[in-house]
Amino acid sequence: MKIIADVMGSDKGAKELVSGAVAALREFEGIELVLVGNENEIKAALDECGCDTSSLEIVHTETVIEMCDDPLSVNRAKADSSMSTALRLLKEGKGDAVVSAGNTGALFAGASLIVRKIKGLNRPAIATVLPMTPPVLLLDSGANINVTPEYLVQFAIIGSEYMKKMYGVESPRVGLLNNGAEETKGTELQLATYALLRECDKVNFVGNVEGNKIPQNACDVLVTDGFTGNILLKNIEGMGKLMMNTLRGLFTSNFGTKMAYLLTKKQLSAVKKNFDSSEHGGAPLLGIAKPVIKAHGSSNAKAFKNAIRQAAAYARSGMIEELNAKSAELFPKKKASVKAEGSEE
Amino acid sequence: MKIIADVMGSDKGAKELVSGAVAALREFEGIELVLVGNENEIKAALDECGCDTSSLEIVHTETVIEMCDDPLSVNRAKADSSMSTALRLLKEGKGDAVVSAGNTGALFAGASLIVRKIKGLNRPAIATVLPMTPPVLLLDSGANINVTPEYLVQFAIIGSEYMKKMYGVESPRVGLLNNGAEETKGTELQLATYALLRECDKVNFVGNVEGNKIPQNACDVLVTDGFTGNILLKNIEGMGKLMMNTLRGLFTSNFGTKMAYLLTKKQLSAVKKNFDSSEHGGAPLLGIAKPVIKAHGSSNAKAFKNAIRQAAAYARSGMIEELNAKSAELFPKKKASVKAEGSEE
Repeated sequence: MKIIADVMGSDKGAKELVSGAVAALREFEGIELVLVGNENEIKAALDECGCDTSSLEIVHTETVIEMCDDPLSVNRAKADSSMSTALRLLKEGKGDAVVSAGNTGALFAGASLIVRKIKGLNRPAIATVLPMTPPVLLLDSGANINVTPEYLVQFAIIGSEYMKKMYGVESPRVGLLNNGAEETKGTELQLATYALLRECDKVNFVGNVEGNKIPQNACDVLVTDGFTGNILLKNIEGMGKLMMNTLRGLFTSNFGTKMAYLLTKKQLSAVKKNFDSSEHGGAPLLGIAKPVIKAHGSSNAKAFKNAIRQAAAYARSGMIEELNAKSAELFPKKKASVKAEGSEE
Repeated sequence: MKIIADVMGSDKGAKELVSGAVAALREFEGIELVLVGNENEIKAALDECGCDTSSLEIVHTETVIEMCDDPLSVNRAKADSSMSTALRLLKEGKGDAVVSAGNTGALFAGASLIVRKIKGLNRPAIATVLPMTPPVLLLDSGANINVTPEYLVQFAIIGSEYMKKMYGVESPRVGLLNNGAEETKGTELQLATYALLRECDKVNFVGNVEGNKIPQNACDVLVTDGFTGNILLKNIEGMGKLMMNTLRGLFTSNFGTKMAYLLTKKQLSAVKKNFDSSEHGGAPLLGIAKPVIKAHGSSNAKAFKNAIRQAAAYARSGMIEELNAKSAELFPKKKASVKAEGSEE
């Protein structure tokens, strides 16, 4: 399983990501690596990890897509960037999956334009595993700000497949994020989506899910538009951080509480792990025709390592091949009215 | 200061709310009470609290608006309900503020139809104080599912006034909830609202605020549509609960952690208080021409007591009178083009 890792353009720099990639190479069986980025930086980082350059491939690139760059620069002004190159290598079959911690919008645009999407699907989505017990897959978590009810139904289908293949959930419960449990709730988008999902025999729709029910095991797959999904995802992240900071403050307030810290250290580290999204790796770009994983922009070595593990598991799962094989049945509308909807693309 | 309390229609029943009302009467100076609801239930609850019925007024009503009732029933099929009666008493000057823990939609519809709104304002909003340090006022938190950029600017104005008057924030920082910090982020609604807020000299606009920045003191007033606001508010509530449950699990896992609990008990209770939205009372229906406070549907006695305290403080603040006096200046568009926008109402 050959993973193509774009090691440029993240918040913490190439050195951090290379060290994560090396850890993946050492820890996980059957992994080969192609590191894409500035060769000098990569070689220096490998040297620091005590990793022989002969144990992996390096593809040198000069240009880097920065966090502030226009997403479309990935296929235009910066078409020779590390990210664009990684995606082209994937397209050409020079590896089995791409992992990048760079600009999310650019990775999504680049994957859509270079690697392309599963046939019949209207739009790919960024799917994120929320740090809940059991895990909840949120999609779209930021790529598609404007969606249609049909997109959301397709998100439900591809999200369900992911939870089946990757988490072994037999019949994933699909929830529609909404401002109330009743089917009359929401904007026109939610009303129309509810009606479509209720009639859809390809997913196990369990109804509307409110914001407070997400940590309460209400569903396995949560579908929403990319705007709301992004607000929700970042809020969960922010609340998790607030919680960890609050605990830190609590335990450092006096001698007694410092003792208490020592007594609960083991349990605390489990709590921290529970709320740590980097434990789940990165966010798959579901619907792209080959595995592309977005690692968090501020990924440390561990998070990048986990994203590589996840990319390998996603590639091995055979999910994309199956979706392609069943696409006529899963995404029939598109196929039936390809001309009428052509402008959508 | 006479507070009209609708004690029916909440999740925990009239007894709980009456006991909260009695506590408010005993603890806070200068409070008089009108309890609206089933007289027998109210008298029985007063008796249990050892409270003399002569120390307050009771207005008997037969009908109750249930959580599942259509909001408009407040002014139609159930126009004789406790909630409708409470709002009518307020309208007629028989009290200074209304507090209710009943159906949110009905209270909002009833307040809009019976008490009416501040002149010149397009839409009132439900404003909720998020349990952050310092507090953040979120509006709209669920009443207006569909909004216009103009509504959001008005929400920013009335929300800023509330934070000035009630929390002493000199120049409240207004943030627009969005899926990124850049001004190019969001749907058409956010793009247009950003442009209006940037030009608005009546509020201190500090730009877009992302979901993870809310607990990080990014703004004092956070404006958004009621759909997104509701998702956000409930998610914060759900994450707070998850946190408290996680801590409970942590401290009960063995003898050592139980010891740790005893050592941190005081600090833990402060943490709990921080995350407890009932500490902040209820949610004001900002823009309604008289003070109306929505207490949480699952309010216990303490939460209802705090909502009564808040209602009294809101009435005393003189905010509504000031907004009315300055309405021509604050909400000029409406006044200038009253005919063109008439259909809006």
